[in-house]
Amino acid sequence: MHIAIVGCGQLSRMLALAGIPMGLKFSFIADAGEDSRCVEGLGTIVRWQPSEPVSAIYDGLGQPDRITVEKEQVDVSLLSALQAYCPVHPNPQAFATCQHRYQEKQLLDKLGIGCAAYLYGQPTEASAAKIPLPVVVKSCREGYDGKNQWVLKHQQEVDAFSQQAKEQNYIVEQWIPFDKEISQVSVRGANGEMRHYPLAENRHEQGILKQSVAPAEAISEQLCLAAQDYMCRIMRALDYVGVMAMECFVVKDQLLVNELAPRVHNSGHWTQSGSKTCQFTNHLRAIAGLPLGSTDPHGVTGMVNLIGTIKPPLASLPPNAALHWYNKAVRPGRKLGHINFTGANRESLIRQMEMVLR
Amino acid sequence: MHIAIVGCGQLSRMLALAGIPMGLKFSFIADAGEDSRCVEGLGTIVRWQPSEPVSAIYDGLGQPDRITVEKEQVDVSLLSALQAYCPVHPNPQAFATCQHRYQEKQLLDKLGIGCAAYLYGQPTEASAAKIPLPVVVKSCREGYDGKNQWVLKHQQEVDAFSQQAKEQNYIVEQWIPFDKEISQVSVRGANGEMRHYPLAENRHEQGILKQSVAPAEAISEQLCLAAQDYMCRIMRALDYVGVMAMECFVVKDQLLVNELAPRVHNSGHWTQSGSKTCQFTNHLRAIAGLPLGSTDPHGVTGMVNLIGTIKPPLASLPPNAALHWYNKAVRPGRKLGHINFTGANRESLIRQMEMVLR
Repeated sequence: MHIAIVGCGQLSRMLALAGIPMGLKFSFIADAGEDSRCVEGLGTIVRWQPSEPVSAIYDGLGQPDRITVEKEQVDVSLLSALQAYCPVHPNPQAFATCQHRYQEKQLLDKLGIGCAAYLYGQPTEASAAKIPLPVVVKSCREGYDGKNQWVLKHQQEVDAFSQQAKEQNYIVEQWIPFDKEISQVSVRGANGEMRHYPLAENRHEQGILKQSVAPAEAISEQLCLAAQDYMCRIMRALDYVGVMAMECFVVKDQLLVNELAPRVHNSGHWTQSGSKTCQFTNHLRAIAGLPLGSTDPHGVTGMVNLIGTIKPPLASLPPNAALHWYNKAVRPGRKLGHINFTGANRESLIRQMEMVLR
Repeated sequence: MHIAIVGCGQLSRMLALAGIPMGLKFSFIADAGEDSRCVEGLGTIVRWQPSEPVSAIYDGLGQPDRITVEKEQVDVSLLSALQAYCPVHPNPQAFATCQHRYQEKQLLDKLGIGCAAYLYGQPTEASAAKIPLPVVVKSCREGYDGKNQWVLKHQQEVDAFSQQAKEQNYIVEQWIPFDKEISQVSVRGANGEMRHYPLAENRHEQGILKQSVAPAEAISEQLCLAAQDYMCRIMRALDYVGVMAMECFVVKDQLLVNELAPRVHNSGHWTQSGSKTCQFTNHLRAIAGLPLGSTDPHGVTGMVNLIGTIKPPLASLPPNAALHWYNKAVRPGRKLGHINFTGANRESLIRQMEMVLR
């Protein structure tokens, strides 16, 4: 089976590296100027120009059997047009919903899923909407790794912000003093079968995911089941096929959904070392129409992102660590790779993760 | 780091697929007529002609930093010549020893490691050497997957065999009515560090490995330690760097070494699903001079080889199964792929393995 992926980043790379052992073939759709070195050698790369007929793209890829996507911010009209040639999973409507924060919030509201109090508009409207300061202002599109997102603590900041940027509407959310940030990664098969990985606990720095540990610790059974229940409702509502990630805040015994990602996700990278089937393999099993793989964990796993101008830390890899290096051009603040650590003991795991981070 | 591998079969394929995530680059040396489709797309393939200067091969590969090998029956003089350009691991002398059964037996004798009673000569000499029938006759070279190996049960068979093939010497071994066939896969780093995987129990059919289960069941601690001790002695004696496999018979509480393989081995494929670090990653860590990875197992793992004219059984993959397909030309009796099964329960694992085999 031949699978084409829209996007040429590390997620496409890891999808292909998970699928090649299964005998799957890959090709990739790149934007005109997109850096494709993550996937070089792993399959044909077709550069897409909006002026080009979709049939030419499909033929250039080598007529794949399935098309999937590694990023939220994909051109939905391209995906819709490609559906005339082969199944596209997840479906274009799922991307349309998840790439626009207001549509995403509306979906959560419709399904009765909790999230921070919010409004769609300008931060100046927050007080009228009874959303106290501080607030988090997010652009509706192009938000990832903390980009296009601002925390406003004081009324002066609110006023200054709105003077600069009054043309468009934002999502203005109550800032949540959370106990933990967690994520639920789940997968839904073409026949509706669903499987859920254990929750991961995440730590962000400057908006970028720095580390995850899974299974997350000291989370009640009830919260775990709530997270799975949310995912079931969301994936069913979107008629979703593939892996989806849901980032949440835990506030006491409450779960507030922060963001959905219609794709394999950085907070699921730990599954490469820590689960019977990693998220990449399960995404491929789902979109290829195969039975899903077990999401059972092996012990405790930690993931550390390698960010910035770091070199691959091969020589200092501890015995229980697996390096994943993306072959990207080095740039400050950029995710260049990650390391998965496995161990039965959470404390020693975290100590080792911190040693690499130093 | 760039690693060149001599050979283009599934072991080279799986080495490259384990190393690409770590940011390693690969190239491959193929014999003139060798089928290279297992590794196509994974790196440059250089076809080697004995008439060609070794410098041209080295340059054609792109001047790798390390050279390794996926098969016993490699041209040792090529490896020795390549040593002038970069480190070759395992070293050529290890191949010279393991690719000749008499040299291998002599090494075991020198190290005081038990194996079946044997002679180097003709099967007609067996009775004088007090080796009772049945005997197993093996050519000194080119023996794998049961090739060039014959079981002779009666004196008439011995006589008929020797009339046909009197030109060369053979290893003639006492046939061992073993309780179990097991294998020890171990790895030695460039600094002498050693790690051992748990023993796997193997089942062969018509000389070809059909399935392995690891950790092997009902093996005494004493036997496990003996297997590790043997490997330590062998790898030290050969100044070996990389993964080595040792196939043994268990006869009551005795361990008899049947064969050494100076490479990653089919009976270690289970480590891809069943260990913190698979044998392929550990071989690469060893030859690249990196600290070795943990060989600790995850529960119980079973491996089933897919042999012959089978198609990749994607649609019937159970949740706890991972498919590895080699992209080879289909041919009767050929290993085309394998499936790794994981599970806490040995009985259910074996039931599932048998379902795939049917």
